Amino acid sequence: MAESLEPEDIELGPVLSALADPHRRHVIHELVNDTDGSERPCTSFGLDLSKSTRSHHFKVLRQAGLVHQVDRGNRSGVTLRRADLDARFPGLLSLIGSEKES
Amino acid sequence: MAESLEPEDIELGPVLSALADPHRRHVIHELVNDTDGSERPCTSFGLDLSKSTRSHHFKVLRQAGLVHQVDRGNRSGVTLRRADLDARFPGLLSLIGSEKES
Repeated sequence: MAESLEPEDIELGPVLSALADPHRRHVIHELVNDTDGSERPCTSFGLDLSKSTRSHHFKVLRQAGLVHQVDRGNRSGVTLRRADLDARFPGLLSLIGSEKES
Repeated sequence: MAESLEPEDIELGPVLSALADPHRRHVIHELVNDTDGSERPCTSFGLDLSKSTRSHHFKVLRQAGLVHQVDRGNRSGVTLRRADLDARFPGLLSLIGSEKES
């Protein structure tokens, strides 16, 4: 789980692909609007999914460079890579954060 | 080919999914930077693809609401839905237009 892309290796294709999924976009929407930027447990986003499916979605987000994920033993926490993403793709996070979710 | 989404029916998920593909993103990148907004033949984007694959990509762009496409008899032309997209998703087109393509 430690692997993380370097900021300059974050690419728009995988980022958009990750965000095309509504569950993953929901996670990023929540993180964008958590303005304190604190770490969130992966279980805190109200995703009604099996553990393995939820893990898959967080892996996609992590591998695209959208989040950092850390293993806390009995749980896993994520933080948004806000500064990296704002530097690489200005406007992207506000676009996701302002989406009206249905 | 006439079907077009109403502006209010353009949704972020299909738009991001359409833009996750590098060929489709290349088309939108070119259209964003064609500031005169004129219609472009579908064959004018330098896509090294079969006709059927190219048609598929334009269909995805059209069905997501990114472009209008018109049949000119022996060819097909596309225009970017710039005003609709800027109104729905501020910042999206500049994000795509400013990507450095490899």
